Amino acid sequence: MQMTNAFIHHVYFWLKESNDESKNELVSGLKKLSAVTTIRDYHIGIPADTNREVIEKGYDISWMLVFANDADQASYQVDPVHLKFVEECSHLWSKVQVYDSVDAG
Amino acid sequence: MQMTNAFIHHVYFWLKESNDESKNELVSGLKKLSAVTTIRDYHIGIPADTNREVIEKGYDISWMLVFANDADQASYQVDPVHLKFVEECSHLWSKVQVYDSVDAG
Repeated sequence: MQMTNAFIHHVYFWLKESNDESKNELVSGLKKLSAVTTIRDYHIGIPADTNREVIEKGYDISWMLVFANDADQASYQVDPVHLKFVEECSHLWSKVQVYDSVDAG
Repeated sequence: MQMTNAFIHHVYFWLKESNDESKNELVSGLKKLSAVTTIRDYHIGIPADTNREVIEKGYDISWMLVFANDADQASYQVDPVHLKFVEECSHLWSKVQVYDSVDAG
């Protein structure tokens, strides 16, 4: 089914320590973060077992969010639950890469 | 709502010619490609109007697919509809970046 009227906010995390403890800690943080009410749908992921040259699989955790629109995503960025997540979990990662997409044409 | 039992296949396309004609051609191709029956959900996107250092917005088109599992994604890769899409549209892009993710823990 085509997803429309969607703002896709996809974040990939590279952890300082790429071990189970850090991954579990970040996943726990993301689960709490998912309580932000403007989030329509979300997925917490790890790299799949696929291998082609075009596939980036060096990241540790994928955090994919669907919002209804730009305003909801903007509101999420400053939501107290999000700010608390950053405060509690940002020590875990060395790099984040974000792709924000809205419906094409 | 949390998406589970999901294989997220997210592709970002950089076009050789970043103009409306090429973008429209690729979007048309992706719409045809969406007919592959193993695709559970999909989104065709363009970069959102967000600006932070961690946001990659140099790509032209985002193609986000949700499959039920690895096997369905693998089947999509060799689906005749997919092969035809690559044949018809691959001349349009200079780079693709793929992130495949499955449910974390």
